[in-house]
Amino acid sequence: MKKIAVFASGGGTDFQSVIDANEQNPFCEIACLVASKEGIGAIERAKRHKIPFVVYAKKDYPSLEELYASLGDFLEREGVEYIVLAGYLTILTEPFVKRFEDKIINSHPSLIPAFCGEGYYGLKVHRAVIEYGAKLSGCTVHFVNAEPDGGAILMQEAVAVLPTDTPEQLQERILQVEHRMLPQAVRALVEGRVHKNGRIISIEE
Amino acid sequence: MKKIAVFASGGGTDFQSVIDANEQNPFCEIACLVASKEGIGAIERAKRHKIPFVVYAKKDYPSLEELYASLGDFLEREGVEYIVLAGYLTILTEPFVKRFEDKIINSHPSLIPAFCGEGYYGLKVHRAVIEYGAKLSGCTVHFVNAEPDGGAILMQEAVAVLPTDTPEQLQERILQVEHRMLPQAVRALVEGRVHKNGRIISIEE
Repeated sequence: MKKIAVFASGGGTDFQSVIDANEQNPFCEIACLVASKEGIGAIERAKRHKIPFVVYAKKDYPSLEELYASLGDFLEREGVEYIVLAGYLTILTEPFVKRFEDKIINSHPSLIPAFCGEGYYGLKVHRAVIEYGAKLSGCTVHFVNAEPDGGAILMQEAVAVLPTDTPEQLQERILQVEHRMLPQAVRALVEGRVHKNGRIISIEE
Repeated sequence: MKKIAVFASGGGTDFQSVIDANEQNPFCEIACLVASKEGIGAIERAKRHKIPFVVYAKKDYPSLEELYASLGDFLEREGVEYIVLAGYLTILTEPFVKRFEDKIINSHPSLIPAFCGEGYYGLKVHRAVIEYGAKLSGCTVHFVNAEPDGGAILMQEAVAVLPTDTPEQLQERILQVEHRMLPQAVRALVEGRVHKNGRIISIEE
């Protein structure tokens, strides 16, 4: 089974969604969790499920370039083929993205190209959607390229914005979709069912 | 029953969707069709359904300002309360938009704020969606303000983009949604069920 690494910066609920789907009906080996700092909730989840983890923290490296060069070497040594960003907040360097071209996916809590790119993360996304008065938002799983949220799109699903929604409530409903969509995307990827032609992606059933 | 005017520039399928819904279960009086030129299909539909029509063509006026000043006077004399843009391609003037503030709605064949604004009309919208590789597009009904496609949103519905879609095929599926959504929006509007608070709109069931 193909090896994947999951990158996380926080509580790790996206990470958990991949763990759960993979335990129920295995499709990959989660070779390791890469945490962006010590003490985050995702690390506890890795321990609980006996998944190896490493911490690659900005503060331990003179530059992000050196961090990602070292992390890239580590992942190659481990035989990791795919990388899943699961609530990972550090922007990857361009050489790292090139090194793992078409191998890194991320999920974003809006319907890209709306409400995405620099500055749109966490609750800010949902606050912007609500202030705009959009009636639909949703979730997008996409490949990672050098442009924030700019890579080719694997999957999207819409979620209704309710007139009474707070950013927190909208976030919660979109997270539920994300926790279903992200493992499906990982599964399709590792099973070789994702076909990419420029920006156009088709996924075999 | 409240009087509406429908503005059209082409074949008038959006116009027809309002006519049909209103004949089945009347909610407004379609006081007139405003055509942007002679000879368009929408005029034939008006004749067939015995709806009065007028032609306000750019070429007959020294400027758009004068055209819309005259058209505004005409609509007020007729007691028209709401205006529905149904495939109407001329950009309204700012004084006209101000004169009928929160009284003019339009539909756009994408999920605004994605794939909208100047230059995004007709097949160009769908071509851009497909080239971007978006997995969802859809239809938006919104109020018209001075910014193209920039007004507050009444309704949105998503439509899946298929890997095999041509711009024409995607357009056709979105039109089907539009023909259902636009009459629903007009009905809600004339029945006073649309409540607007800045950019945030709620619609009573």
